[in-house]
Amino acid sequence: MDQRFAKRVRDTQKSFLQRVFKAAADPEMISFAGGFPHKKFFPVEELKEATVRMLDEHGAEALQYSIAEGYLPLREWIAQRYHEKYRITVEPDEILITNGSQQGIDLISRVMLDEGDPLSIESPGYLGALDAFSLYLPRYHAVSMEDDGVNTDMLKQILKKTDVKLFYGVPNFQNPTGITYSEKKRNEVAEIIGSSKTLFVEDDPYGELRFMGDSLFPIKKLIGDRCVLLGSFSKIVAPSLRLGWMCADRHIMKRLVNAKHALDLHTANFTQLIVYRYLVDNNIDDHLETKRVAYLRQRNRMLEMIEEHFPKRVSFTRPEGGLFLWVTLPEGVSSLELFDIAEGKRVLFVPGTPFYPDASGGQNTLRLNFSNTDEKLIETGIKRLAEAMHEMIRKL
Amino acid sequence: MDQRFAKRVRDTQKSFLQRVFKAAADPEMISFAGGFPHKKFFPVEELKEATVRMLDEHGAEALQYSIAEGYLPLREWIAQRYHEKYRITVEPDEILITNGSQQGIDLISRVMLDEGDPLSIESPGYLGALDAFSLYLPRYHAVSMEDDGVNTDMLKQILKKTDVKLFYGVPNFQNPTGITYSEKKRNEVAEIIGSSKTLFVEDDPYGELRFMGDSLFPIKKLIGDRCVLLGSFSKIVAPSLRLGWMCADRHIMKRLVNAKHALDLHTANFTQLIVYRYLVDNNIDDHLETKRVAYLRQRNRMLEMIEEHFPKRVSFTRPEGGLFLWVTLPEGVSSLELFDIAEGKRVLFVPGTPFYPDASGGQNTLRLNFSNTDEKLIETGIKRLAEAMHEMIRKL
Repeated sequence: MDQRFAKRVRDTQKSFLQRVFKAAADPEMISFAGGFPHKKFFPVEELKEATVRMLDEHGAEALQYSIAEGYLPLREWIAQRYHEKYRITVEPDEILITNGSQQGIDLISRVMLDEGDPLSIESPGYLGALDAFSLYLPRYHAVSMEDDGVNTDMLKQILKKTDVKLFYGVPNFQNPTGITYSEKKRNEVAEIIGSSKTLFVEDDPYGELRFMGDSLFPIKKLIGDRCVLLGSFSKIVAPSLRLGWMCADRHIMKRLVNAKHALDLHTANFTQLIVYRYLVDNNIDDHLETKRVAYLRQRNRMLEMIEEHFPKRVSFTRPEGGLFLWVTLPEGVSSLELFDIAEGKRVLFVPGTPFYPDASGGQNTLRLNFSNTDEKLIETGIKRLAEAMHEMIRKL
Repeated sequence: MDQRFAKRVRDTQKSFLQRVFKAAADPEMISFAGGFPHKKFFPVEELKEATVRMLDEHGAEALQYSIAEGYLPLREWIAQRYHEKYRITVEPDEILITNGSQQGIDLISRVMLDEGDPLSIESPGYLGALDAFSLYLPRYHAVSMEDDGVNTDMLKQILKKTDVKLFYGVPNFQNPTGITYSEKKRNEVAEIIGSSKTLFVEDDPYGELRFMGDSLFPIKKLIGDRCVLLGSFSKIVAPSLRLGWMCADRHIMKRLVNAKHALDLHTANFTQLIVYRYLVDNNIDDHLETKRVAYLRQRNRMLEMIEEHFPKRVSFTRPEGGLFLWVTLPEGVSSLELFDIAEGKRVLFVPGTPFYPDASGGQNTLRLNFSNTDEKLIETGIKRLAEAMHEMIRKL
């Protein structure tokens, strides 16, 4: 029956993220694998209250079908926040509420990509974006990452030579590397995009999780309509609500809304109203600050343990926010092999290769998550991982 | 910038459903247009209680990322219900939770359809399905509807001549006509599908809303793996939760789950857990019975008013369940023109043409919804619509 499937799924592999999500469910494991925020910060009581208050206020109306664009007061809240934080003007009708920002990646692909269209993405880049884009069978033009953001010389060359439809990037605390684009890099990207026909897909799920250094503006601030900006409540409130958003100019938005409507009519109004109630009734900045303080402590503990225990030839990033750091093993040491040894020692991470378009690189790299593990477990977990590394390097 | 968009959206029109959803928001209108269940039956207090109890029970765990397949106990509940109602065996791992059954249409398209693939659909058929399928640029092979279901002679001919990948149908109280496939037609469809390579997409959002006559088995009961069965909580619990499901054999399910994961990771676990709590703590059959009694009364009132006031040459269906009935005006009378006159008299319906693939027929037909309007308003609304019809026919 295989030949009956659409070409886009004919040789799909099981997504590595799915394997990771399932392995992380084993309570014996110390997992640095998932991209999970820590559940201790989920506002359980506040969401309970928000639900009751919301249903008292809206009654049955909150349970009816609604419009594809999403709940207007929630879109106004998002617009207001961009204005307050970055002095960016985004109108509420340039915002679409999505089922997590993951759906934003699918929607912009659906509206922009024909089979074989050239697409640029950071390399390594967000695995979930590669999964989403790949269903549209694009031709990848990978742009490598440097310590201060994407390699802009390379981006410039690619966009000059090729009619790239979309360039996808995560300028804040990138997934998987934790790298943040410097102000200089942001200006360069804006200039390159501005003198091309490429649309920049700026994914910013972690922007609110900066725990050191100065907050930097989204690149959308510089290039407006030439950028589609994605955001998420998964790291601000909680992931299981599946609420994100995308900002795009009206010309594109019209098609995004039509596609969204054809796809699933609209995002759950029930959860939109609850989250709106929650945001209005609580001090979200205090809540975020608590998270930042804890994540910073965890990140610091992980870095200290790494410095103390990892083999000397192993290098790593020092992220200023977000959930991840990136480890580079000595050339020739395979992180996939390390994964097997580490799993035996009950510690998980994500090997680097799946983060590269066409799995074309990063054999000696891996991603570690520090948000979802308490300090004590970070100590034990990093020791286990260090042991696995030493064992492996000894064998070579 | 138009040429930059993907071919699939280049000439999208604004979906008619969106226009309908927005017009229905005007409180001055009597709307027989939307496909809305009546909000008076939404279990507001019960969902409030279910949310509180669910969060008391699961705590922060309920707010974390989860698996693409959906919440297992909810899938078990669905499997159990199929077994109790129809003696069909569907295993929980053959069920995927979706953002409403609308997303099920998108997902099966994504997994099965390449551009230009032949696709069969009832004509008239569900507008939202046409919107969803059309993004995959299929070639439509429409199968006309008869009083007792799809025209099986025509279906047989089409499937014999053409390598149709999917046939999409709504055997219970079809949207838009309200027609139900007879037992004979179900057996014929099963036989035709069984001797073809076509996969049957059986959409059943209204099956629980039968208010007269005998309940009939889903066609999946006869053809198992050759059928993908879609279901929805929108008409059982409430639409704004955006919860539906799809049943498919494991071979297809594997690809559906991968596609679901790439698309939006998973359906909101928060709402899945709430609905599961609600279903376990409440007697859903009592709740459905209350709805059925009320909808039957509304349907009867609408039919009585139609018989009394519509011009004699107008015909209509007499549905045994669901939300809709279908009206056929005399040949040459345009329901689009009627729409304008009726809108002036403050009554809304959906003209028939958008329900035909490529808008290729039904100029003299229209759909009426009876679920979302109380009896008193049904009386006023049908009188207004009858006036509009008489006015129009007089002018001809």
